[in-house]
Amino acid sequence: MISSTHDLYPSRMYPEPKLLERQDPVVYNRRIQQSEIQEEQLAFYERNGYLFLDRFFDETQVAEWKKELKALLELNKHADKPEVIREPGSEEIRSVFAVHRDYPVFRNITQHPGIQAIVKQILGSEVYVHQSRINVKKGFTGKEFYWHSDFETWHTEDGMPRMRALSCSIALEDNNANNGPLMIVPGSHRTFVSCVGEAPDEHYKSSLRRQEYGVPDQESLRHLVSQGGIEAPTGKAGSIVLFDCNVMHGSNSNITPYPRSNIFIVYNSVENRLQTPYSGKQPRPDFIATRS
Amino acid sequence: MISSTHDLYPSRMYPEPKLLERQDPVVYNRRIQQSEIQEEQLAFYERNGYLFLDRFFDETQVAEWKKELKALLELNKHADKPEVIREPGSEEIRSVFAVHRDYPVFRNITQHPGIQAIVKQILGSEVYVHQSRINVKKGFTGKEFYWHSDFETWHTEDGMPRMRALSCSIALEDNNANNGPLMIVPGSHRTFVSCVGEAPDEHYKSSLRRQEYGVPDQESLRHLVSQGGIEAPTGKAGSIVLFDCNVMHGSNSNITPYPRSNIFIVYNSVENRLQTPYSGKQPRPDFIATRS
Repeated sequence: MISSTHDLYPSRMYPEPKLLERQDPVVYNRRIQQSEIQEEQLAFYERNGYLFLDRFFDETQVAEWKKELKALLELNKHADKPEVIREPGSEEIRSVFAVHRDYPVFRNITQHPGIQAIVKQILGSEVYVHQSRINVKKGFTGKEFYWHSDFETWHTEDGMPRMRALSCSIALEDNNANNGPLMIVPGSHRTFVSCVGEAPDEHYKSSLRRQEYGVPDQESLRHLVSQGGIEAPTGKAGSIVLFDCNVMHGSNSNITPYPRSNIFIVYNSVENRLQTPYSGKQPRPDFIATRS
Repeated sequence: MISSTHDLYPSRMYPEPKLLERQDPVVYNRRIQQSEIQEEQLAFYERNGYLFLDRFFDETQVAEWKKELKALLELNKHADKPEVIREPGSEEIRSVFAVHRDYPVFRNITQHPGIQAIVKQILGSEVYVHQSRINVKKGFTGKEFYWHSDFETWHTEDGMPRMRALSCSIALEDNNANNGPLMIVPGSHRTFVSCVGEAPDEHYKSSLRRQEYGVPDQESLRHLVSQGGIEAPTGKAGSIVLFDCNVMHGSNSNITPYPRSNIFIVYNSVENRLQTPYSGKQPRPDFIATRS
């Protein structure tokens, strides 16, 4: 275990929350080396911690993936395996993890040349898939996801050393303002919110259904929002949003009839491979955080 | 008890949901007799079932009412009385009912000449306050309100005979797309969704915290939304939204730091006073539904 004196981003070990300055770059390679995004877009990502690209994939492509998603959900309808996460208080599937590992069509998506080019540009190195999943936010009963920084969890529970990872979410439905879209606090990626409390062993089993540890406090959230506001990028199915591992994000519930499902891929730099978790606890299983 | 053969809007008595055509006017007096709203606005209300008026009240006025609201919440912090409704699973106040009866400042708001003029125009008669409350949707933890028609409840549980009532919601904070604003299905006021199931006695005690009966089914909601879409009027504090008693509406949760509180007044026509509840059960108490 790495001693806490070397931990740049300590969390869940102090009785009070702390705001710590980010010690890592956001964009690791500023010299444009791909044609998928331009200099201004890269600058936008660096400043805000995210980038939204409307209609990155076309309708035909999305229709095909939705068919695959449907088949995947049908296949796992009654599956009793840890990769399949269900809604609190129901048997509805909320997420299926490790789709890049278990299903060739989803593996191919994570290897898409356009996405790979952008991700390598931002992270300035080769990359690998740290985590992948499909998320289904059903109409009528879609639950909220409270505010969080992914990095806080990946660092504390998985041992990701530095902020050199990002998520890519591919929308399989139109996102509008009312169906519980992803909300981001622009600029929040520059601050690490050290959360209070200590997570119990095997915390992931409940946290994937409802978050209880590693939850940022209200005062820190108020501060970040007062500085950056809240953006909820909305657009057509096939749009993608890329966001930094430390940007604060969440989403409200969805009572509209419009479902909101997406393919979610986390890329990590090969120079940022996982270490022993900073919590000192057992690492989470491979389907949540690739270690091999 | 009025026999079900005379009930134009039966609900909670059939095993299947039904869509019934509205049997009542929406605008009872089309000849403009006030200067607060224009002919096109009245036509908008008739077509869509609601009307949003941004900045109807100015900032000074809103600031004064917010002070009154704060005092009211403080006063009722530990109050153990039925008018004070708390969030499920916490002691936070969600609503305080009968504010027009118990607090002079709120009584005065319900008598505001501008609002009264519009309401009498639409309902085509003198009016009285059927229900009043203040609603507090806190930041971070504001819960959702599922889709419902107010009239379905007022008719079934309170004995309101016809659709000749409307709600006026006065925003005490800015409403934006992300802090759980009121969502309305335009045009849905022309259809009565007869809900399945039968409510138990004293249903109101739990339904004010979480709705379980009189809930429209997903297929009916999908149908209404496919025809009218969803609108979430947003604007400045001091804006008002007037909406028909039968328009389908609801709101998502609110994880943003921005609270959303409002003063909520239901006006009913004096020609539409409450009868025996159509459910055949005991009427709800006066603080929810004025009978005297």
